[in-house]
Amino acid sequence: MDYLAKIYITLKPAVNDPQGVTVLGALKNLGFTTPANVRVGKYLELSLAAESQDAAKTQVDEMCKKLLANIVIEQYRFDLEEVPANTSGG
Amino acid sequence: MDYLAKIYITLKPAVNDPQGVTVLGALKNLGFTTPANVRVGKYLELSLAAESQDAAKTQVDEMCKKLLANIVIEQYRFDLEEVPANTSGG
Repeated sequence: MDYLAKIYITLKPAVNDPQGVTVLGALKNLGFTTPANVRVGKYLELSLAAESQDAAKTQVDEMCKKLLANIVIEQYRFDLEEVPANTSGG
Repeated sequence: MDYLAKIYITLKPAVNDPQGVTVLGALKNLGFTTPANVRVGKYLELSLAAESQDAAKTQVDEMCKKLLANIVIEQYRFDLEEVPANTSGG
């Protein structure tokens, strides 16, 4: 079965986010007065084959821990979608 | 009213994603054989004040177009959540 994992990686709330502060400053400079806070994270779409949803979940969790997220300063969560098997061009 | 916008910015499907290819290669090197494709994007959490959900939506859309996304090669979508007004420390 094919699955699509949508992975969201964000800095832990206690960790400073200079990139977010820069984006917020840029928005203010452009004349946007309403934003109060910006945090920047990563978003990954990962397609994988696995025997079951549980197997896929375990795999993705492992990938996040070993490579995708820096779990010292980042937290991650992900959604899994089952993808109907078809030949997608691209 | 305070709103939290969760913004997802991804490369358009037709655009090459060398970062994703690199991540996929790294996963294979770590022994993960199941992933078939990885696309890397950005995820932003933006809190803003607006008079209504519609006003917030218009604002965030504008911000995406003007700064956050490069609409030539990227596409974006966002969810808006109403945040109860409170004094959040941090």
